[in-house]
Amino acid sequence: MRAFIIGLALLGLSAFGAGHALAETHPATDGPLVIEKQGSFFIGGRERTSTTLGRGGMAAGTITVDQVYVRYQTPPGASARPNIVLIHGCCLTGKTWETTPDGRMGWDEYFARRGFSTYVVDQAWRGRSAADPSAINAVAAGGQSIATLPSVFSASHEFAWVIFRFGPKYGETYPGLKFPMGATGELWKQMVVDSASGLPTPNPTVPALTELTGRIGPSILISHSQSGIYPFQAVAANRRNIAGLISIEPAACPKATADMTPYNTTPILVLFGDNTAASPIWSSIVKDCRAYVDALDAAGGRAKMIVLPEIGITGNSHMLMQDLNNREIADLLVDWIDKAGSLSR
Amino acid sequence: MRAFIIGLALLGLSAFGAGHALAETHPATDGPLVIEKQGSFFIGGRERTSTTLGRGGMAAGTITVDQVYVRYQTPPGASARPNIVLIHGCCLTGKTWETTPDGRMGWDEYFARRGFSTYVVDQAWRGRSAADPSAINAVAAGGQSIATLPSVFSASHEFAWVIFRFGPKYGETYPGLKFPMGATGELWKQMVVDSASGLPTPNPTVPALTELTGRIGPSILISHSQSGIYPFQAVAANRRNIAGLISIEPAACPKATADMTPYNTTPILVLFGDNTAASPIWSSIVKDCRAYVDALDAAGGRAKMIVLPEIGITGNSHMLMQDLNNREIADLLVDWIDKAGSLSR
Repeated sequence: MRAFIIGLALLGLSAFGAGHALAETHPATDGPLVIEKQGSFFIGGRERTSTTLGRGGMAAGTITVDQVYVRYQTPPGASARPNIVLIHGCCLTGKTWETTPDGRMGWDEYFARRGFSTYVVDQAWRGRSAADPSAINAVAAGGQSIATLPSVFSASHEFAWVIFRFGPKYGETYPGLKFPMGATGELWKQMVVDSASGLPTPNPTVPALTELTGRIGPSILISHSQSGIYPFQAVAANRRNIAGLISIEPAACPKATADMTPYNTTPILVLFGDNTAASPIWSSIVKDCRAYVDALDAAGGRAKMIVLPEIGITGNSHMLMQDLNNREIADLLVDWIDKAGSLSR
Repeated sequence: MRAFIIGLALLGLSAFGAGHALAETHPATDGPLVIEKQGSFFIGGRERTSTTLGRGGMAAGTITVDQVYVRYQTPPGASARPNIVLIHGCCLTGKTWETTPDGRMGWDEYFARRGFSTYVVDQAWRGRSAADPSAINAVAAGGQSIATLPSVFSASHEFAWVIFRFGPKYGETYPGLKFPMGATGELWKQMVVDSASGLPTPNPTVPALTELTGRIGPSILISHSQSGIYPFQAVAANRRNIAGLISIEPAACPKATADMTPYNTTPILVLFGDNTAASPIWSSIVKDCRAYVDALDAAGGRAKMIVLPEIGITGNSHMLMQDLNNREIADLLVDWIDKAGSLSR
């Protein structure tokens, strides 16, 4: 049970009532892609000095940490719509949103093909966003106790199988599951070392999101799992350029007893896949997120919760963006985004 | 001096005679970019079991490590030319080849605009290519001695300044330097923790390169600095789909006394920037690489060495791909690549 609770903390989730009509599937979006502009850059970051950057004569000096890597693509005509910012979850990187494990188009490209400037980040201290080796080298040098070693975690295949809701236990799958189970080997390669539990709250990714939207203008923040709480924290800090939040299977929603004022002008969609009821962790999160959405609604907010099977879409795992119907889900989000403008107030 | 030698080992370099006519600058390559296909995937990787993946109840299980993240873009018509594979150096990731620190187009896009399918990797255990946290957690759990902690290194601004040949010492710049020195803050954000010194030889990136070229077909491998030796090792293991090597400021070339047979049918270009003579590390590497190229030439190989100031191009740093004349350098490489086909035998 403790493992489950920790697992929950590492991930982060929420859901909305029935009755939402499915967006029509968009016309073919294959064939050559035209990109107006693409590139990458960093946001955030702070300088720190250290004497344990390594173990030899180059161990002392200044490095930059806490920055967040961002890669973007802008299709022609995107300036008429909000940007989309994609923020991955635990133990993963921005690769989450790229080509699926079985080789289909990822949401990074699909949203660009649907006309959005699309920004993919690596969370602070993850992937192409630098961590700091100083604490490890300080222990190696003998000057610090092993209690100061950083908290680093990699999710095992076995743990991820259950938390991603491929099945009730490793090796078993839920009936009708839409994850491409023939390609799990490629999914496992996406998983990296996660340092998040040793980082301050809010995670440095949160102020970086504020800096990002300040730089690129009105944006829809799409989080997943562990990163689910970050956009809520960013909105609470500064809602100005946040055109909406889409929280996909968040590991946590704000508490239903919290002050709803920070959230009550921002369109918010909380989305869950299938089989949450079969999972103690996820059923608890769904319940908590529903309570949050209800409380926000009662406070005059603009939140919506969708649990996909409640609107007739079944078989989705925790990794919605990689499931076999990932375009159908993306179309559902685009439909919501296109209406979100009128939800703002 | 020991620091310098370690620095050298962390990087990896070589040089070639004068007389090479500069390629003509290519017509404008700005404006919308048309991409036939883009995406990302992993090559290599092995499963390992561990009981120290974390510190709680989820610490035991299987993870996948040693894989290499690859992101690619294919422009229309690229099948007529070899692919280009871009392999970054010490303490950096594939970001090296993307947008420059001052916001200009990176080589990842420029080579695509010049008509090449372009593949950018993150070395094994770096960036989006997973490392393994087990050794750290094993020490933290008290079961292992601190001597087993992994070797992890971040290059300080001060160290990188000198090794990247911005100037003879931190804060001083060489006259006429072509690196965008107003944007060093953005360069420092590119630098990440490097685990390479604790990995086996060859680095797992090397067999992954063989697997990659086996999958994508004939390719030019463009290395930088630390990764310089990898393509030589890949050619020695299996030259079949390696259409050529471009070794940009390698930290090491093969030894001039080595058997040249593995290298004598592959077109090879070794390229250095300016001010190498002012650097004890780099002047030594340039000398060693020139000896290798001369030995390979004497053995009937197809190697060429260019030290840019010897052909009239001055001011280039170690970070050639980000220098202000990075398109001019790229055009020089395209010119060489277009001739490399006739160099094969």
